[in-house]
Amino acid sequence: MPHSPLPPPPVPPLAPALIERFASIVGARHALTDPADQAPYLKDWRDLYPARTQLVLRPAATEEVAAILRLASETGTRVVPQGGATGLVGGHLPFAEGGEIIVSLTRMKAIRAVDPAGNTLIAEAGVTLQEAQDAAAAVGRLFPLNIGSKGSCTIGGNLATNAGGTQAVAYGLARDQVLGLEVVLADGRIWHGLRTLKKDNTGYDLKHLFIGAEGTLGIITAASLKLVAAPRAVEAAWVGLVSPAAALALLARAQERAGLAVTGFELMPRNLFEFVLRHMPGARDPLGAPAPWYCLVELASPAAAGLRDMLEDILASALEDGLVADAAVADSSAQREAFWRWREGMSEMQKPEGGSIKHDVSVPVASVPAFIAEASAACEALIPGCRPVPFGHLGDGNIHFNVSQPVGADKDGFLARYDEVNALVHGIVARFGGSISAEHGIGRMKRDLLPAVKDPVELDLMRSVKALLDPKGILNPGKVLSMPAHGVEADR
Amino acid sequence: MPHSPLPPPPVPPLAPALIERFASIVGARHALTDPADQAPYLKDWRDLYPARTQLVLRPAATEEVAAILRLASETGTRVVPQGGATGLVGGHLPFAEGGEIIVSLTRMKAIRAVDPAGNTLIAEAGVTLQEAQDAAAAVGRLFPLNIGSKGSCTIGGNLATNAGGTQAVAYGLARDQVLGLEVVLADGRIWHGLRTLKKDNTGYDLKHLFIGAEGTLGIITAASLKLVAAPRAVEAAWVGLVSPAAALALLARAQERAGLAVTGFELMPRNLFEFVLRHMPGARDPLGAPAPWYCLVELASPAAAGLRDMLEDILASALEDGLVADAAVADSSAQREAFWRWREGMSEMQKPEGGSIKHDVSVPVASVPAFIAEASAACEALIPGCRPVPFGHLGDGNIHFNVSQPVGADKDGFLARYDEVNALVHGIVARFGGSISAEHGIGRMKRDLLPAVKDPVELDLMRSVKALLDPKGILNPGKVLSMPAHGVEADR
Repeated sequence: MPHSPLPPPPVPPLAPALIERFASIVGARHALTDPADQAPYLKDWRDLYPARTQLVLRPAATEEVAAILRLASETGTRVVPQGGATGLVGGHLPFAEGGEIIVSLTRMKAIRAVDPAGNTLIAEAGVTLQEAQDAAAAVGRLFPLNIGSKGSCTIGGNLATNAGGTQAVAYGLARDQVLGLEVVLADGRIWHGLRTLKKDNTGYDLKHLFIGAEGTLGIITAASLKLVAAPRAVEAAWVGLVSPAAALALLARAQERAGLAVTGFELMPRNLFEFVLRHMPGARDPLGAPAPWYCLVELASPAAAGLRDMLEDILASALEDGLVADAAVADSSAQREAFWRWREGMSEMQKPEGGSIKHDVSVPVASVPAFIAEASAACEALIPGCRPVPFGHLGDGNIHFNVSQPVGADKDGFLARYDEVNALVHGIVARFGGSISAEHGIGRMKRDLLPAVKDPVELDLMRSVKALLDPKGILNPGKVLSMPAHGVEADR
Repeated sequence: MPHSPLPPPPVPPLAPALIERFASIVGARHALTDPADQAPYLKDWRDLYPARTQLVLRPAATEEVAAILRLASETGTRVVPQGGATGLVGGHLPFAEGGEIIVSLTRMKAIRAVDPAGNTLIAEAGVTLQEAQDAAAAVGRLFPLNIGSKGSCTIGGNLATNAGGTQAVAYGLARDQVLGLEVVLADGRIWHGLRTLKKDNTGYDLKHLFIGAEGTLGIITAASLKLVAAPRAVEAAWVGLVSPAAALALLARAQERAGLAVTGFELMPRNLFEFVLRHMPGARDPLGAPAPWYCLVELASPAAAGLRDMLEDILASALEDGLVADAAVADSSAQREAFWRWREGMSEMQKPEGGSIKHDVSVPVASVPAFIAEASAACEALIPGCRPVPFGHLGDGNIHFNVSQPVGADKDGFLARYDEVNALVHGIVARFGGSISAEHGIGRMKRDLLPAVKDPVELDLMRSVKALLDPKGILNPGKVLSMPAHGVEADR
């Protein structure tokens, strides 16, 4: 595999008596030591990181998480916090064969409060994204974070990784949905920061340290979240375009006319759509002729009237100006859902086409067309016949720059060049001032790439903050940042 | 005055040779030692904090700021960073008679980049908010932060204080407008973090530490800012209501129908509107009969059509349901601007009515009516005849709970009870889970109130972060947090 696990670090296994002490915090039923019971907590969607642990703990309350971290801090036990285990960069899995325990937050499932008048919701870490969305919808509101794994990913994991997804173009990332946090610190202290205030300028904003830190600075146990008005109209179109530059011009036009009502703007190339047409049952091209590129454009608004006219006006003017080749506006919610199913299947539908070398990158929005052109040409020059299938969230400059193997090539031979292709693409990303992890995070996968792409002062600040908040290095060690060369982790 | 300056701390004056070294960094012309030259940098809008300094430095570039902080760090010189000097809590002024120098960022006025396709703008710290808005408007975009002092306040100050203002209900606070920062750290190192990416999950989000830290953790020298589509239609109404609860119901209805197109929602009582009618030339009541409460409701949208109908429909349905007593929709942009002038004059128009005891507080949005009722009753019980005039940003739960003196009472006698009234109101704010500083910050004014209202774990984290980023305590010392009881600041 391209990302084989690092050699297991020399972490001594936990003594049975210590396992017993941890188990007594959550109760024996929720302290899993049997590999069969542990299996759901060791899964990895891309099968990159085979993992084992001696102990999975399933606390039911913040106080139990605090007791676990007090004991972990006292004994130097390494802890891997985990939500729905849907991460794509190995951040949710233990590194070592033994010695690292998993703390799964999935039993902390209370929705502690919903306030439609204040547009807030307080959810514990183990609430799934779908459940949070449903709780908001039940009071006529929208919780606007939306990602493909919403049925199993959790609010705690969404915040720990600052999840992005398809509606970020209008509503922002997970980080932008948060008013307050409850966090258990490495030493077991609880920060009670569950404010539901829209404005609070009383000192440093510490919640953003924990959001996106991938469990390396503290364990988020609950969050106060913002809600917005539920849309009463949603419209979508499948649009054929001649180029990414045309898509960018269409995006500008859509936002100039509809502003934040542009809730989705996804770009994909014809060859990737063909993967979907070939392999996804029921998929069909809604346009009369193939186009080199496509956008899925969605508008949504609490205003019930006029949205379809707005979308059709935008498309008509773009057609007139030659930006758009053809477009199909969804005639029903079923058709709109089909458009999204095609889009969301674009990762899965690469599998029947053989090996795929993946990148989750972003560049400034205006640079997307040039980035795609340059990176595609570079990959095709490196591996003749390879098939770049760059797709994703154009409105955020976030392109999943994936490269499928040449037709008929040897899959393993292609995947053996994973790191080489990554280096090539990430080099181009760097020249555009982009990011090598737009929305999936760093975890274990990209940790060792970080020093090359990060401002050295920033990296030094990150290390200082880690040392401040987790001086013993027990929280998700070796994720995001490599171990420090001093202190308890001196052996790494 | 109620907030007389703390006793000057024992900061030794700067030696002439050291002043010379600092001056040589920026050039003698921009190193101000004459009190007449310094006057604009020592002003305080509310005249609470008479200030003096030996030296005002006006660097023109990030490298000069870095050189200043290197020297300050080497020599233990205390530095007060300053933007437009419009702060309301004394955060921009030196504490001590000597020994603290002001570093004014107002010469750093470059707009380094504007990218309408990417919806971003890079501004140096000394660019005024008005200039940033103008640069966005020049390319057909909106920079949506908006506060009364926009002509003189600066982007650096806006970010250092996480400014709020009248459009936060739709667009969020200053913090929410930032994609990246350039920051000079206490030791003079420069963090080059001017990313223009919408998505970047490569490690800890450190920019939020500096935003809202009031210059105590680093000096922001430039920022990458988000732009949004410029509105093509703006409508506003002056609405008479029976109560804050009715205003809250109107807010919910407006947001349910118009979502983020609700760009302003300001609440004020009749007695405060009467101050405006009495003292502001040209102000007149647009409604036929007095109402106990008023809202200024603004809708704005990039969609050119239909906004006025939407506003009128919202108001008609609210009128029908008895939420609204009467409403006047602005018939021209001149009338809309008049509505805003009345609203923005509500602080100034308290002056002719005598002494005013002020609070910049927030509570959860749904609690605003109960908070106003309880705090008003408590103040009236404490000081019979006093006139609570709570007004502000209902959509953010942010109420400027000001209390004007009883008619004919002695102003100084009333103001002598400032701290007593503050304590009363802040106690009620605390019971509602609110904030004692919604948007103005802590600065010098509220520093000593912080320990009583902040979660102790959070306060401890704040102190740790301060010690980490400013170990010598040279950055805006004594603002936000009191001095630590150890190290170079042991004497305080």
